[in-house]
Amino acid sequence: VPDPEESGFGLGNLPYGVIRRPGGPPRPAVRFGDRALDLAAVADAVPDGVFDGPTLNPFLALGRPAWSAVRTRLIELLSEPGDLPLIPLGEAETLLPVRIGDYVDFYASIEHATNLGRMWRPEGDPLMPNWRHLPVGYHGRSSSVVVSGTPIVRPAGQLAGDPAPTFEPTRRLDFELELGFVTGPGNPLGSPLPIGAAREHIFGVALVNDWSARDIQRWEYQPLGPFLGKSFATSMAPWITPLEALEPFRVAGRPQDPEPLDYLRTEEDWALDIALEVALVPAGASEETVVSRTNARGLYWSVAQQLAHATANGAGARPGDLYASGTISGTDPGTYGSLVELTWGGRDPLRLAGGAERAFLEDGDTVILRGAAGGRVSLGEVSGTILSAQR
Amino acid sequence: VPDPEESGFGLGNLPYGVIRRPGGPPRPAVRFGDRALDLAAVADAVPDGVFDGPTLNPFLALGRPAWSAVRTRLIELLSEPGDLPLIPLGEAETLLPVRIGDYVDFYASIEHATNLGRMWRPEGDPLMPNWRHLPVGYHGRSSSVVVSGTPIVRPAGQLAGDPAPTFEPTRRLDFELELGFVTGPGNPLGSPLPIGAAREHIFGVALVNDWSARDIQRWEYQPLGPFLGKSFATSMAPWITPLEALEPFRVAGRPQDPEPLDYLRTEEDWALDIALEVALVPAGASEETVVSRTNARGLYWSVAQQLAHATANGAGARPGDLYASGTISGTDPGTYGSLVELTWGGRDPLRLAGGAERAFLEDGDTVILRGAAGGRVSLGEVSGTILSAQR
Repeated sequence: VPDPEESGFGLGNLPYGVIRRPGGPPRPAVRFGDRALDLAAVADAVPDGVFDGPTLNPFLALGRPAWSAVRTRLIELLSEPGDLPLIPLGEAETLLPVRIGDYVDFYASIEHATNLGRMWRPEGDPLMPNWRHLPVGYHGRSSSVVVSGTPIVRPAGQLAGDPAPTFEPTRRLDFELELGFVTGPGNPLGSPLPIGAAREHIFGVALVNDWSARDIQRWEYQPLGPFLGKSFATSMAPWITPLEALEPFRVAGRPQDPEPLDYLRTEEDWALDIALEVALVPAGASEETVVSRTNARGLYWSVAQQLAHATANGAGARPGDLYASGTISGTDPGTYGSLVELTWGGRDPLRLAGGAERAFLEDGDTVILRGAAGGRVSLGEVSGTILSAQR
Repeated sequence: VPDPEESGFGLGNLPYGVIRRPGGPPRPAVRFGDRALDLAAVADAVPDGVFDGPTLNPFLALGRPAWSAVRTRLIELLSEPGDLPLIPLGEAETLLPVRIGDYVDFYASIEHATNLGRMWRPEGDPLMPNWRHLPVGYHGRSSSVVVSGTPIVRPAGQLAGDPAPTFEPTRRLDFELELGFVTGPGNPLGSPLPIGAAREHIFGVALVNDWSARDIQRWEYQPLGPFLGKSFATSMAPWITPLEALEPFRVAGRPQDPEPLDYLRTEEDWALDIALEVALVPAGASEETVVSRTNARGLYWSVAQQLAHATANGAGARPGDLYASGTISGTDPGTYGSLVELTWGGRDPLRLAGGAERAFLEDGDTVILRGAAGGRVSLGEVSGTILSAQR
């Protein structure tokens, strides 16, 4: 058995997910190295039934005191794992870990927002006047969130055309490298969550690939925002790294100018030092090419600001809701988190190992997102392979 | 007991909802006149357990053959209601009838889209180039959908300001008169629902008030669409009128120019002849004023087109999902479905019975939406009263 500490899934991580062994029911579990422990092992630390269901939602609803108690108990148990019934991950399927009530996608990277603005609205300021005052966001489709490994069917949709639009499979299928967080226990409708309460409501983080059809999106998005260009699929990591595991990697955020309004201000450090990369395996190839390397700490708007903003009008967060950052891009081209930026709208295709070139994704391509807090606490992978459009 | 046929809730309607008697559990029910019948009375027409839960979702999942069988059985039973245990509605609370997975809001009225475009983007064509080619829509927040009668807390948010935005309670609180539909059984991710399948997947309709904070919305909405200006509350009718009850009121839609793409074309009549009105009771008043009268048949994009478009990229519809039309406005000022249109951005306040004037909603105001198919099959009411902002 490999050393769990070497794997990035040691005692300092212990992410939560849901697994299923052949013929068995979905079971909440914690990952330790390349094995998992059924959370039935710590059922005595929570009220009856919390770990009986097919998702982590009942656990998320309990709140931070219960989350801390369970983590403490798991660290005790896994410090001496000899007799524990650990399940090799190769013997289990990983399922979507939460039942997502609402899915919000932000636009929190100033570099990403600037790049898209330059490409899509070249006539004006690439950032809208609101961008530096609030974390711009919108609601995605929760039914389209799937777990890593789920194949992605190329969507069809309306593409702009002259004299008229056409309906056909997207020609500009893209990934988006994002960091998501999952909430619990949440707030009743009408009662905002102040930014100081973020730590009580952010359970943990997971990598997210918000697949995007750029041609569908560009034609449809004005004036009410992205819809079918996004809602065909969003992939999420199977393992949610709890906030406790990220505490050593909470760092000061970048300066914000102008200073945000009071409800978005906090003295706490909420930038997350999480190294990220995107690998692409083109159809038919055996070798991957890392096409982007960046870090979540460069996001302009923090996870705490995202949650405070999303509930500032009284909107209710519920256990299991997913909030994603939007594409995470750095300042240099090799740090961009989407193909539309990396290839500058398809103009400069990427050259991949083995000789393939890609402007956008082709059928059979596989995209893999990876992340590690401080470079050593692993957020695992989010992968997806493109299937051809249905006829 | 008043005659159910006179009430608009006779045998030709029989809408479904969920009620709760004091101390009792939530119970799926059908409305007949001003009484309701627990659906346990027809449990033998469906698989075990379908009517055991607190929502209609398991029933919606069954699909049209089961919906028809239950309706046939209910019509038989209620034709001779003498011995049935009918529950007076005054003795029960009405609850949100469905657990909403995803909530989509369209922009299907050409008059509404034109009015908003004129006010908010006066420099250009009020309709975006995409508008006549596809039913523009976006995802709303499902956790914010509440049942009629739920008080609405005035939301706070960022308002545009010079030199900087402020955070304060909205000054431009508005209603939106909308027609929603609820789906079941739905489609797996990656498999679009063709427009010809609409009748198998549209369970029924309910009035919706998509409360809007126009100042928050206007500052935030570019480029990703409405977010906090909408997500604080959406009110829904407690009773869902099944599509069977609307069959006599399906009429030809208005001409569409240009002709829509194939996936949005059908020979079926999908416009719905539903007379609509909005009444406003200003704070402290006892008398209402009807401020708008219009008809859902004037919508440019039909419910069938809305559903076909929303799933054209393979997005999955699930039992209990809610799709709303967007504000329904007619051509004349008295037919507009929102205050921002009725008062033209607040410029021309409405004069109400009793002498009050309103540009936008004030604390204590009550808004009531009403509708009736063919003027006689009632869609009931959606009401909500504004509470002052939290401090």
